[in-house]
Amino acid sequence: MRTTLRTVVVVLALVVACVFATAAYAADPLPSWNDGKAKQSIVAFVEKVTTPGSPDFVPVPERIAVFDNDGTLWCEQPMPVQVQFALDRVKALAPQHPEWKDKEPFASLMKGDVKTAFAGGERALMELFAVTHTGMTSEEFTQVVKEWIATAKHSTTGRRFLDMTYQPMLEVLSYLRANGFKTFIVSGGGIEFMRPWVEAAYGVPPEQVVGSSIKTKFEMRDGKPVIVRLPELNFVDDKAGKPIGIYEHIGRRPIAAFGNSTGDQQMLEYTHGGPGARFELLVLHDDAAREFAYGPARGLPDAKLGGAVTPALDELAKKSGWTVVSMKDDWKVVYPASTR
Amino acid sequence: MRTTLRTVVVVLALVVACVFATAAYAADPLPSWNDGKAKQSIVAFVEKVTTPGSPDFVPVPERIAVFDNDGTLWCEQPMPVQVQFALDRVKALAPQHPEWKDKEPFASLMKGDVKTAFAGGERALMELFAVTHTGMTSEEFTQVVKEWIATAKHSTTGRRFLDMTYQPMLEVLSYLRANGFKTFIVSGGGIEFMRPWVEAAYGVPPEQVVGSSIKTKFEMRDGKPVIVRLPELNFVDDKAGKPIGIYEHIGRRPIAAFGNSTGDQQMLEYTHGGPGARFELLVLHDDAAREFAYGPARGLPDAKLGGAVTPALDELAKKSGWTVVSMKDDWKVVYPASTR
Repeated sequence: MRTTLRTVVVVLALVVACVFATAAYAADPLPSWNDGKAKQSIVAFVEKVTTPGSPDFVPVPERIAVFDNDGTLWCEQPMPVQVQFALDRVKALAPQHPEWKDKEPFASLMKGDVKTAFAGGERALMELFAVTHTGMTSEEFTQVVKEWIATAKHSTTGRRFLDMTYQPMLEVLSYLRANGFKTFIVSGGGIEFMRPWVEAAYGVPPEQVVGSSIKTKFEMRDGKPVIVRLPELNFVDDKAGKPIGIYEHIGRRPIAAFGNSTGDQQMLEYTHGGPGARFELLVLHDDAAREFAYGPARGLPDAKLGGAVTPALDELAKKSGWTVVSMKDDWKVVYPASTR
Repeated sequence: MRTTLRTVVVVLALVVACVFATAAYAADPLPSWNDGKAKQSIVAFVEKVTTPGSPDFVPVPERIAVFDNDGTLWCEQPMPVQVQFALDRVKALAPQHPEWKDKEPFASLMKGDVKTAFAGGERALMELFAVTHTGMTSEEFTQVVKEWIATAKHSTTGRRFLDMTYQPMLEVLSYLRANGFKTFIVSGGGIEFMRPWVEAAYGVPPEQVVGSSIKTKFEMRDGKPVIVRLPELNFVDDKAGKPIGIYEHIGRRPIAAFGNSTGDQQMLEYTHGGPGARFELLVLHDDAAREFAYGPARGLPDAKLGGAVTPALDELAKKSGWTVVSMKDDWKVVYPASTR
């Protein structure tokens, strides 16, 4: 009896879900995109690989799509959000570290002088990451990130970072998933910095996140088994590291890849190099009014921190048939209207 | 019109799927398990975490279950299948390597003298893995594994290795998935040795496989972007490596873990250490008639290659409330009746 009732409820729920899904499908799946080549290229690809009998049909398990995060799914200017997190952590931890007053990069960071702080190059950056991202258990770090991201705001827009994801890209993620794709994030950012919030922000579960990582160790702490984060780099998921990260974590070559910078080039090339239908897209940040304008491609100014489309990458995209999205021309809106 | 037809077809398919799923659920989900404590403990756990309103209810995204492979999901005696693969590859490659006749461990391996070959310890094993698992692209290696596993047979049973998966464990995998779990393999075996066949064998997609790995590099080969496998160890997914592998690949602490040896201890401890309802299980190989009997726990003889339940692990399981499965007493059958 209980089983029969459960069946009825499940079937009804599925019917309702189906009707809604079909209604959404019948409507425009990408309402924040202006009609144009970019939008058409996305829709044409999805229809091609999902139409049974089409020579380009791809079975569901092989519908793997990978997305860069910073600058592709959310804003990374004037600095990547994770760098802002590290700076805020330095301020929060400073009272416990009186010695930082005389120690770089911390002394400059606490004065707000990011330029001097980062003059120390990679070593300064690694020191910053070591004190803000390591020396604690995985669960402690997750908690710190969760608390910070819930309220942290962008320095010039005053919006929460979580409200500066790109609405048109959120629609692409949903559209692909509605068509049987598994969506992964493949970012140069820290894998454990992203996992606590990407499920709510993008609908991507933690196990579908690939990113840079530090070394960790397993130990018993007060009789409790924990993972401890060590101040040592494990993997850099950027440039040629991205295909490696994809191979390690996903184990299949994606059929669609989305990026915005030279850090994504190899991921797009790797995706492009497989057999059958393929799709690659670059977001060009040419919208100074609604977001930021930086390149240096197409006469845009150079980005200070974070990557972008360069003239060489722009040329490669053209030669390879990759879609280059103009934020200014292709997107009706940039950020989601609703506050999460 | 087309959309309406599609809706009807999809809804009908879902209804049919549901009815079948419910029928299967109403029937015994673990028909190859004898009634007893082991079977009851699995069913009790699943019902507890999936019953809405239960204090132990776990939301679907957090229903993560991890399974060791060798000795937990398929037979690993008299040697792990991947070692047999390496031995067969040495034989297949020997004609291209006349120098192996005078070089260990190859000289002994070609004479079938495994004992002398492995007398060289870890170095001999690494040399064996280097020549059989590396120096080619990822796609070439996948192809080699696929071709080998399709026909390779066990030395004493004469069955294909693919037909020596454990039917009762296949039922556990299906039962968990039918209850909203995501099932992962977390094995000391090579991640890329498993990925080509685990989807067909266990229903686990490549992206849900965690394993030991070698280093790789991304390069353009004849204008084609490829991943090249290097003769250098990257990660050993065994013992304390298993929780690390889980953290890196999954990013959540599992709520259920299945193993059969000391190599799985830390994975089971890590799973056990989280809050809320937890489930851990060890397969004890005590069935000399239908499989193999080895331990050294409970008076069973020691295993030569591959891990097992030791007296200390047996004791830990008892103390921690983990389920220990007796293959002899708890399983009606060991291998699937049908040939795949």
